[in-house]
Amino acid sequence: MYIYIHTDLDESLRKQLRSALSSGHHLYFRSEKENSDESYDMFSQAEIILGNPPLEWFQSPPVHLKFWQLDSAGFDKYRGLELNARVANMGDWFARPCAETIVGGILALYRGVDVLTLLRQRKEWVGAGLRPYLGTLYRQKAIVLGSGTIGTAVRDILEGFRCRVLTLARTSPSADLHSREEFLSELNDTDLVVNTLPGTVHHFVDREVLMRMRKGSVYANVGRGSTTDEEALIEVLRAGHLSGAVLDVTEIEPLPTDSPLWALPNVVLTQHTGGGQVNEDVGKVELFLHNMEKLRNDHLIDNEVDLRRGY
Amino acid sequence: MYIYIHTDLDESLRKQLRSALSSGHHLYFRSEKENSDESYDMFSQAEIILGNPPLEWFQSPPVHLKFWQLDSAGFDKYRGLELNARVANMGDWFARPCAETIVGGILALYRGVDVLTLLRQRKEWVGAGLRPYLGTLYRQKAIVLGSGTIGTAVRDILEGFRCRVLTLARTSPSADLHSREEFLSELNDTDLVVNTLPGTVHHFVDREVLMRMRKGSVYANVGRGSTTDEEALIEVLRAGHLSGAVLDVTEIEPLPTDSPLWALPNVVLTQHTGGGQVNEDVGKVELFLHNMEKLRNDHLIDNEVDLRRGY
Repeated sequence: MYIYIHTDLDESLRKQLRSALSSGHHLYFRSEKENSDESYDMFSQAEIILGNPPLEWFQSPPVHLKFWQLDSAGFDKYRGLELNARVANMGDWFARPCAETIVGGILALYRGVDVLTLLRQRKEWVGAGLRPYLGTLYRQKAIVLGSGTIGTAVRDILEGFRCRVLTLARTSPSADLHSREEFLSELNDTDLVVNTLPGTVHHFVDREVLMRMRKGSVYANVGRGSTTDEEALIEVLRAGHLSGAVLDVTEIEPLPTDSPLWALPNVVLTQHTGGGQVNEDVGKVELFLHNMEKLRNDHLIDNEVDLRRGY
Repeated sequence: MYIYIHTDLDESLRKQLRSALSSGHHLYFRSEKENSDESYDMFSQAEIILGNPPLEWFQSPPVHLKFWQLDSAGFDKYRGLELNARVANMGDWFARPCAETIVGGILALYRGVDVLTLLRQRKEWVGAGLRPYLGTLYRQKAIVLGSGTIGTAVRDILEGFRCRVLTLARTSPSADLHSREEFLSELNDTDLVVNTLPGTVHHFVDREVLMRMRKGSVYANVGRGSTTDEEALIEVLRAGHLSGAVLDVTEIEPLPTDSPLWALPNVVLTQHTGGGQVNEDVGKVELFLHNMEKLRNDHLIDNEVDLRRGY
């Protein structure tokens, strides 16, 4: 098999791949030069791909492609591609780190950990003076938008805090809410909304949603920046309608230096680090090798997705 | 009844107490002046006390004292007092806020929320560059020292993160570990130790414990500062033996400006804000009134403690 590795891996992981795939496979790693012709040539001959090549390369998809292992959970930009190949994403590999980052950001806001970090920098003790301003997740009502792997992980974690969690997902039978109308009708006594939606639902959280949220409630987004009307969000934060926001994603990334989100109080920005973890690349290589083995034995592969349908 | 209120309450809460206890009670609020003679006189005549007066006032305890509602969870400094009165503490009122603060601090460390807070202050985007340095709680092994209300809340929350949690408590049958030896023998593959011990176990976490902890593991303390040998902790952090520490409590509070803990990397200080929450005083008044009602009806009171025995 002719295998093209687009994912940027360190030498030890390259070595691991070479040794695991030594028999009967030809392994090509992408060139150091970003999106070079050389890499494109390797891509177009590939039977197997690991990683997320530029979308435009798929204008003429590799004709021999049999299996494509994405190295991300999301695959919005590839939606609608018609490939005669099996495709898998990273499934829940990124789900737990994403969920932990967004809950970490929420706790930083509620328990003042962000303020305390700045105080430590100044060697300034405030202590008890902060206590009356601290919120708690305990027994709060939360709505999680999306019931994919990230949404499910967020719900599990919030339930450990004894939150009452409702999930919204149009088609999932296990979700509590299935329509925008049901969602809106729950907002007046909801304390926290956590967005884990993919980029396909543009501005789902718009001015109407934000205004219908209870005064003093908190909005968190670990889905995609495009799912939120950021201008409207900034307005409701400025007006004090929401008491805070935790954003792993923004409409433009990196966030432009002139964005008000940099300086608004009660905002936590985690800079799209949500999926990050020590050994992130190790996991990519492991899942890829695991799925290669499944393919070889003609078994079902893990985390197979359908690009045409988008899930 | 002659009631002395030592807890510092705002006017609306004083009003609530006055209106709830109008019939047959005389209500005295402590003087604005810290520990004044006037307050001491009111204290010494009290049949009921709300709050935590100075220990030295108990050298001659109020002879008519029937019920004392502490306004804290801890009561180390009063241990051993012999009073012919019933005593209650705040029980789990502070447990969830404490647990949320310490887990918030741990997530700040693991998910880089502290670093990201400082980056926001500088309007600096690092984003993906941080991802390889981020840790996750998912499937980690954690040991919680103490199985009181705070320890139990910490365990519940960590289990939502799918941690494998062991608790240590000498006498509790529900604990997993019951001795220092059992604790030490678990440390070599433990990722996180969370201390929720009361101040009665001086330097339980000493140099030996810290050195036996796995290299790269994390220590968190939301118990009492005196339970940890802080000098040894600073040494193991400096040596890189531990990868970080989250401290709600320190041996001296406020933390002296010359303490290395202010500037050591990978330390989160939450300045003993753990129990804090919006409406902290509301909860104190509510529990007090609740217990007054129980006493009036000769029912068991909530969170009764035994100062002689220390629990």
